[in-house]
Amino acid sequence: MIRRGFPVAARLSHHRVLPGVPHVLPRLTSASAFGSSTESLVSEFCVEKTDLKDYVLPNASWFPDMLSMYQEFLEKTKADGWLKLPSFKSNRDHIQGLKIPSGFAVSSGTSSDQGDWRIFTRCIQVEGQGYEYVIFFHPTKKKSVCLFQPGPYLEGSPGCAHGGSLAAMMDETFSKTAYLAGEGLFTLSLNVRFKKCFPAAAAGRGLVPVRVTMSSGGPITDCPACLGPTTEEGGVPRK
Amino acid sequence: MIRRGFPVAARLSHHRVLPGVPHVLPRLTSASAFGSSTESLVSEFCVEKTDLKDYVLPNASWFPDMLSMYQEFLEKTKADGWLKLPSFKSNRDHIQGLKIPSGFAVSSGTSSDQGDWRIFTRCIQVEGQGYEYVIFFHPTKKKSVCLFQPGPYLEGSPGCAHGGSLAAMMDETFSKTAYLAGEGLFTLSLNVRFKKCFPAAAAGRGLVPVRVTMSSGGPITDCPACLGPTTEEGGVPRK
Repeated sequence: MIRRGFPVAARLSHHRVLPGVPHVLPRLTSASAFGSSTESLVSEFCVEKTDLKDYVLPNASWFPDMLSMYQEFLEKTKADGWLKLPSFKSNRDHIQGLKIPSGFAVSSGTSSDQGDWRIFTRCIQVEGQGYEYVIFFHPTKKKSVCLFQPGPYLEGSPGCAHGGSLAAMMDETFSKTAYLAGEGLFTLSLNVRFKKCFPAAAAGRGLVPVRVTMSSGGPITDCPACLGPTTEEGGVPRK
Repeated sequence: MIRRGFPVAARLSHHRVLPGVPHVLPRLTSASAFGSSTESLVSEFCVEKTDLKDYVLPNASWFPDMLSMYQEFLEKTKADGWLKLPSFKSNRDHIQGLKIPSGFAVSSGTSSDQGDWRIFTRCIQVEGQGYEYVIFFHPTKKKSVCLFQPGPYLEGSPGCAHGGSLAAMMDETFSKTAYLAGEGLFTLSLNVRFKKCFPAAAAGRGLVPVRVTMSSGGPITDCPACLGPTTEEGGVPRK
């Protein structure tokens, strides 16, 4: 069951959020995929596999705000150069054929079909209960937008999304952006300041559009739209 | 299935990790539980409920290192003043009877039995596949130690625990420590620097003992023991 109408909201800081995510890993071997062009990385990441479930497709648990913003960005994929990134159960299903660091070679050719591995943000497969999200990426602008609806399995304090679940969603958005931009694969620095509590699966409010823009100094982010209630509407500020 | 023997390791930074977690929330109402004594908070948190599953009890998925460190700290609960914190499916099962901020009043008296809510770090209930952890707390020292074994559902890059899953585990450890110390409930600032990759469910290595010490300036943390391999042993450094 998804709770609805919990009267709190979150707004993530505009500053100092995950500054180190896209840094390249200087000690990785020459077998690394990093340094490849965004075009080739995107084409290899967005693998065409009809036998794998793509978790970015809307389902019955999506709230109206999530659906409307999804449709808005879907329109942008037709004209504005945006790509809707597929999301399979595991990164193993995205990186088939890619050269990855030697330390990972043992698993580079292993599909999730051969073992029950899951990318953390797809660990909960019950629709609406965990992470519902879709990431849109703009190869030229090296910019991503993640639409995210947290479910009741992501709870921290009663009714409120766990800070770690929000940080993980941002980490995933940044790492995908950095990877497809050819900047690296791993998070080096995770730095988030929370300003308000965020509801877990509150009707039409469980949505944080995270906007990530790549720059030479790393990504910067802002959350220009928080669909949760303001403090005046009953939101509980964190500070 | 749990993969074993993936030859990478992680070490979390000794510096600038979650400095803001235990900050009190100045705008919370007087109905807040914060400011209560550690003794009363602990007694209310460690509720005796025989009908709820306690997820901190060892199961067949625990690796030898996890079990041995668990036994080590269990001995400390008998003589050194440490407490093993119970962990039910939801925080709702821990805070029954506690006064919480007015914005949360709607859910304060609602047990997880009345709805399928889960604390994020217990969102995966299949033994060994997600978070396996136990937190020990010392009320006098206001210090916690979390023993944590990540499973294959917490994956980021193939074979490697997702940075967000590690950050969430640290966030949970800090927030419980801060809460029981009467310092607050919500994470304000999450700041982690990752130094190495960490294996997801690598045999005997998927263990990060996170040590949290409360201080007037907030918590400080160190990870003195990383049971994964060193760089010389094949670990892949993040920087």
